[in-house]
Amino acid sequence: MRTFQMGKSNLQFSRLVYGVWRLADAEDTSIKHVREKIDLCLDQGITTFDHADIYGDYECEKLFGKALADDPSLRSQMQLISKCDIALMSDKFSDRRVKFYDTSAEYVRASVEQSLQNLSTDYLDLLLIHRPDPFMNAAETGAALDQLIDSGKVKAVGVSNFEVWDWRLLQANMRHPLVANQVEMSLLQRDAFTNGNLSAMQLDSLTPMAWSPLGGGALFGDTPETRRLAPIFERLAQEQGASVDHVALAWLLAHSANILPVVGTNNPSRIKSLSNILDIEIDRETWFELWTAAAGQEVA
Amino acid sequence: MRTFQMGKSNLQFSRLVYGVWRLADAEDTSIKHVREKIDLCLDQGITTFDHADIYGDYECEKLFGKALADDPSLRSQMQLISKCDIALMSDKFSDRRVKFYDTSAEYVRASVEQSLQNLSTDYLDLLLIHRPDPFMNAAETGAALDQLIDSGKVKAVGVSNFEVWDWRLLQANMRHPLVANQVEMSLLQRDAFTNGNLSAMQLDSLTPMAWSPLGGGALFGDTPETRRLAPIFERLAQEQGASVDHVALAWLLAHSANILPVVGTNNPSRIKSLSNILDIEIDRETWFELWTAAAGQEVA
Amino acid sequence: MRTFQMGKSNLQFSRLVYGVWRLADAEDTSIKHVREKIDLCLDQGITTFDHADIYGDYECEKLFGKALADDPSLRSQMQLISKCDIALMSDKFSDRRVKFYDTSAEYVRASVEQSLQNLSTDYLDLLLIHRPDPFMNAAETGAALDQLIDSGKVKAVGVSNFEVWDWRLLQANMRHPLVANQVEMSLLQRDAFTNGNLSAMQLDSLTPMAWSPLGGGALFGDTPETRRLAPIFERLAQEQGASVDHVALAWLLAHSANILPVVGTNNPSRIKSLSNILDIEIDRETWFELWTAAAGQEVA
Repeated sequence: MRTFQMGKSNLQFSRLVYGVWRLADAEDTSIKHVREKIDLCLDQGITTFDHADIYGDYECEKLFGKALADDPSLRSQMQLISKCDIALMSDKFSDRRVKFYDTSAEYVRASVEQSLQNLSTDYLDLLLIHRPDPFMNAAETGAALDQLIDSGKVKAVGVSNFEVWDWRLLQANMRHPLVANQVEMSLLQRDAFTNGNLSAMQLDSLTPMAWSPLGGGALFGDTPETRRLAPIFERLAQEQGASVDHVALAWLLAHSANILPVVGTNNPSRIKSLSNILDIEIDRETWFELWTAAAGQEVA
Repeated sequence: MRTFQMGKSNLQFSRLVYGVWRLADAEDTSIKHVREKIDLCLDQGITTFDHADIYGDYECEKLFGKALADDPSLRSQMQLISKCDIALMSDKFSDRRVKFYDTSAEYVRASVEQSLQNLSTDYLDLLLIHRPDPFMNAAETGAALDQLIDSGKVKAVGVSNFEVWDWRLLQANMRHPLVANQVEMSLLQRDAFTNGNLSAMQLDSLTPMAWSPLGGGALFGDTPETRRLAPIFERLAQEQGASVDHVALAWLLAHSANILPVVGTNNPSRIKSLSNILDIEIDRETWFELWTAAAGQEVA
Repeated sequence: MRTFQMGKSNLQFSRLVYGVWRLADAEDTSIKHVREKIDLCLDQGITTFDHADIYGDYECEKLFGKALADDPSLRSQMQLISKCDIALMSDKFSDRRVKFYDTSAEYVRASVEQSLQNLSTDYLDLLLIHRPDPFMNAAETGAALDQLIDSGKVKAVGVSNFEVWDWRLLQANMRHPLVANQVEMSLLQRDAFTNGNLSAMQLDSLTPMAWSPLGGGALFGDTPETRRLAPIFERLAQEQGASVDHVALAWLLAHSANILPVVGTNNPSRIKSLSNILDIEIDRETWFELWTAAAGQEVA
């Protein structure tokens, strides 16, 4: 699988990223089954795994980490992303009074330490600030993130769900470059393509990552959007043998901004076929056919 | 007529620009009649003509070009703007499946070659990217535009309907400066004055051009806006002998940002009087009277 | 009271600013009562007073100025802010046809001269452009503002109700730095925290000032917002003896961006207790509890 150099860093990530946010939802969460998913990814060259402290009510990192603890040789074959700053209401934090964001130096450092412990590793390849924090002290957060990179505990830092002024403020308070912004992008969520956000990411060398690249499953429902998209999906199925989910991911991959989709299926047979997506060709006109069908109106 | 130096270029454009987008709609599209309109403009110092590949279903450039072919001495007396990147659904491109944008190097170069051929000229004074393309490969498009300038086929490049992050991304991938942004601005479309777009254009030395400066003719209808504007128009008619359309254009000319209105009337008598607009004085308070009547509420 | 250095200037402003916009609304507007309010502020270290030419239909500056004329020793104990560019419909300007903004050099200079005369002073510490002017000639306005600073008539210049492209355009036309942006911010008006405006202010070293920090009194009404906020206000009243208005101001003070709230109560007993606000502690979780109750939904 092709790899991609993240932002201004030396990190090489795989062109598709496997997202573990539903790992704890699987019926079987044994080490054996987690390892099976990891191997299915690695066998295809999908070497980058996207975590967050909070996924699975704070359980997903631990499930994944058990597989790494069981076979430490796995770590060098993969890149690990995790995130922090969302403080969830959870039985595990019974004294919390509200869901909030925390980008304080103390919290960020503690969150990274916990992620490292959960994942049985001594470094993250990429740490993302999960949500823009309206209470952020940029000087404090920026310094804490720089220190985490200097210490080797994280190789690089980025953001998620940020818009340009928020990341520029954080960047202005850091020595190391922010290298990524993970936002929602899909055929069903196209705002970043037109509101300046994707352009600003490219301008500032933040590699765009796409969460919910399948629209949270809505592409498989029966909606006005999916009914308009259906004939194009059918044509591409006939021409290239491409399934709906593969077309939707290839639509993101076709963009020159090197968008990295974060794919999170728990289904082993679907995982096994992910690398086929890279063979699908979405030319410019087809890209706009899909855009137009999703939007329900032609471009201006 | 006053002229204006476009952006950071050496181009001198006339203070009013004649837009040909309805040239093919005229009852008589003979060379003689096209030439008549050109002469009416040139006689008044309106030397800049605004085209696009697609105007008149790809016919307007050709109609205009016939007059240039008929009298090649005209070319040196005028400046020609054209645009590209909108791929229209059209009988002329019967294999198109959808309206789309195309900023690929190949398409942009071919579009310019076609415009040059249509217009019977060997250079455009200004080429505009017609619409922001959500699929744009900025490195590719920027390099293609630079090459077109280097080759002498276009003297300068700008954009149309762009917002700041999109033009900054394109500019970051070019050596030559973008010199203009043509957007909709009029008494009936005032967004650019308040949403930062006109400020950002001035900051980045993009000369603002205004399409539909008369609101697409809506200023002549009977609407709440026009009823509120009527008493002010009447006063200005009495004080300065100014017609509604001339006031609306003078309202744009009065702004210090040097907004160039693109005027597209097919009516010879209206064309003949266009230069009178430059004699109308719209002072600050009158400017806000018109703003307020159009908006239907006083400023905050 | 703590003081704060404004933007990139040498100005030291008090952490709370007293706003006089309702000074003319008080039952007693005698010099004695105005002086009483000034003394109540100064006694607590509230040394910065926020004016505008238009407050009280152009009367507030004069009322305040009488106290300064009566005791010139007061001037050196305080900092004076005033504003200009809103031209109100008023009996005092009976020939005006519309409310408008005026950032012309002539108007801005005359407005400052009038403010100096009204306030019985020979300098303003800070002059703010009151509203973004869609008709602004940035080169002209910027030069006029620079000259006012050079002449010593104003120590520094800032803006009010601006967004980033408007202040960047003005700044690009000035030699002296803009040092503040006064916008509406409160528990009931949180847009600046999420739309990039507060981040951009920090990035550009514009000190944020908050007008209507109590939501124009709406925090004391019976609304869905205040009903959701009530239990938290009650808890903070019990824990820290803090009143609703003090909590709302402390919520702004707790932010690391050094937001300066402009407080405008006419009630002497309320003025007398303002400095108590600085003792209230709003920790991060409480800050988000208040945010969430005001918003009516948890953060994303």
